[in-house]
Amino acid sequence: MERVAIIGASMTQFGQREEWIRGLLAEAGGACLRDAGVSADAVDHLYVSNMASGEFEGQTGVPNALAHDLSAVPAYTARIDQTSSSGGAGVYAAWQSVASGASEMTLLVGGEKMTHRSTSEATDVIASLTHPVEYKHGLTLPSFAGLTARHYLDTYDAPRESLGKVAVKNHRNGIDNPHAQFRKEVDLDTVLDSPIVADPLRLYDFCPITDGSAALLLCPESVAREYADDYAVITGIGGATDTHVVHERADPTTMGGVVNSAEVAYEMADVGPDDIDVAELHDMFTILEFLQSEDLGFFEKGEGWKAVEEGVTDRDGELPINTSGGLKSKGHPLGASGVAQVYEIYKQVLGDAGPRQVDAETGLACNVGGFGNCVTTAILEGRQ
Amino acid sequence: MERVAIIGASMTQFGQREEWIRGLLAEAGGACLRDAGVSADAVDHLYVSNMASGEFEGQTGVPNALAHDLSAVPAYTARIDQTSSSGGAGVYAAWQSVASGASEMTLLVGGEKMTHRSTSEATDVIASLTHPVEYKHGLTLPSFAGLTARHYLDTYDAPRESLGKVAVKNHRNGIDNPHAQFRKEVDLDTVLDSPIVADPLRLYDFCPITDGSAALLLCPESVAREYADDYAVITGIGGATDTHVVHERADPTTMGGVVNSAEVAYEMADVGPDDIDVAELHDMFTILEFLQSEDLGFFEKGEGWKAVEEGVTDRDGELPINTSGGLKSKGHPLGASGVAQVYEIYKQVLGDAGPRQVDAETGLACNVGGFGNCVTTAILEGRQ
Repeated sequence: MERVAIIGASMTQFGQREEWIRGLLAEAGGACLRDAGVSADAVDHLYVSNMASGEFEGQTGVPNALAHDLSAVPAYTARIDQTSSSGGAGVYAAWQSVASGASEMTLLVGGEKMTHRSTSEATDVIASLTHPVEYKHGLTLPSFAGLTARHYLDTYDAPRESLGKVAVKNHRNGIDNPHAQFRKEVDLDTVLDSPIVADPLRLYDFCPITDGSAALLLCPESVAREYADDYAVITGIGGATDTHVVHERADPTTMGGVVNSAEVAYEMADVGPDDIDVAELHDMFTILEFLQSEDLGFFEKGEGWKAVEEGVTDRDGELPINTSGGLKSKGHPLGASGVAQVYEIYKQVLGDAGPRQVDAETGLACNVGGFGNCVTTAILEGRQ
Repeated sequence: MERVAIIGASMTQFGQREEWIRGLLAEAGGACLRDAGVSADAVDHLYVSNMASGEFEGQTGVPNALAHDLSAVPAYTARIDQTSSSGGAGVYAAWQSVASGASEMTLLVGGEKMTHRSTSEATDVIASLTHPVEYKHGLTLPSFAGLTARHYLDTYDAPRESLGKVAVKNHRNGIDNPHAQFRKEVDLDTVLDSPIVADPLRLYDFCPITDGSAALLLCPESVAREYADDYAVITGIGGATDTHVVHERADPTTMGGVVNSAEVAYEMADVGPDDIDVAELHDMFTILEFLQSEDLGFFEKGEGWKAVEEGVTDRDGELPINTSGGLKSKGHPLGASGVAQVYEIYKQVLGDAGPRQVDAETGLACNVGGFGNCVTTAILEGRQ
């Protein structure tokens, strides 16, 4: 297995953008190549992670268009879709491309263009990933989140305020992220007084609809020094699914896909949860940050909320989570989010995260599709 | 690089099917596992190649649903889309999954459900892969095929009849394929007298709209004997793009993606065109069989048509092409086609192709997306 290095990374401004998907991907892809100082000629594999360019704007074949826009023809291209975790799946595909020995230089560009559609149109596209029978009964992703949040609060005797504090923390972190959609402090009262979406969760417990793109450039570690003075290594990576029918899960507060993907990633990296210095988790809903932080082994089951209450996951805490601002403040352009998570960890382990910098040698990114339906977990270490 | 074996294969009946995409995928996936005698528990990676389940039937997240239907949870899942060559891209993703060392057992299931939509709705979805400006000027895939066919006939002094003979040959082969959509002899007059679609190409120069699915089971060659007495090895595989804007190509009768993907595949397999005993080419339009057979190096530029005229590519010829019946007779369910091509080559190199069997140790499958926009080429050898 060839060891895989990340030698360049970029992300566009997340938010409401004028560009179509093709423009967003080209912006991030081009910036990533410039960041690494690598010519498009050197790219032999080009992956696009994107859930639904066909549904959102009637354009398919975007990887081929991107190869054109970046002058990367005849590089091999394909689109990787794993619904809301398409970005993480793209990272895994790009890793496989290099680890298999097929590629000497793989560019991954994740992106989604969503804000030109109404919120209900956009959520209808996302909801098409749910089980048709559950959906018919009103079990959309937000309603699953509400039910799970209620169950979590009841089971673990956690205060409603603890969920709100995830939003407060991630918005505070996002202030220092120039690419974030929302760069503003949000206080706990604002979260707790915002309109109910799926009780007990309120508007500020949810991430926004977002346009944006992010990119990574990967090559075998054996040649990484030829391109970069410092780079990150993907020391571990794994993916797993959980049941498509969410009500089949034995414990709704445990995300099997997180547990199983992390197990693979930890074993490959030969590390455990205690070795992780910083993490990006998929806080599409605030409750998901609790579940993931427990299922990744950072905290005992039912104790994730206490870590937030006690400031453990703050930027100056013992295990900072979502230093980027998370999906909550940064935004969630589906195909880009998992790539942008790895972008943040890449910056952190290279000491290049500016005002968001924490003390980190090893970082983890966990990207979740659906309601934990499919998950990828990646572990990075910096090499300087 | 781990050497990758195919230890099982299946395909459903192609044609007009009642099942939705999810049912088609489950049918092929389940049959493939039974073919190999491998339990779903053993599958750690499950890829679905599919272009447009979201656009065709409003259902996304089908890999996760398939993991449920096959009882393959918590296997990692993702969807691979490379438009009409999604199947070949799926083969490449599945190969990378095993070759990288990440997977001990990967199931690939390709499929598409299209016939419930009208022909114009279905072709509108396919046309969304074309360049928006070219499309606006009427340059759809069929019109490119017509223009290219005219140019080919003029440049190489080939008779119109030679194109028709591709259709006649592939329909003749398809009679012996129980999974083919059309199992009927078609004579040359029928082809030549059929309605014009894009001059000089007529209705019988085009493949149909099709529902169907096909699957392959892959593992490291080092453990293949534990599962199968005979198996095929993917000795070479490569992918490449050509320009998204078709009119930018220097020579419209040369498919750069075919040339470049084949170069990688031949080099990896350490063989040349002369070593190929049987091939499945992407005859979405009859003209494409000429172009690919030349760009793969089987025949000199401008001589592909003579090979068909002289019977070289007949089932009893020197280099049989499309023994399965090709897309022309078998049908073209986008995400399944590239997988079904490899299914046919797998059967041929294992001597298991029944009445379609030819004398073959080494076979090649070439899957083409768009108008040669993206291409994968795979080379298989049998191990008995």
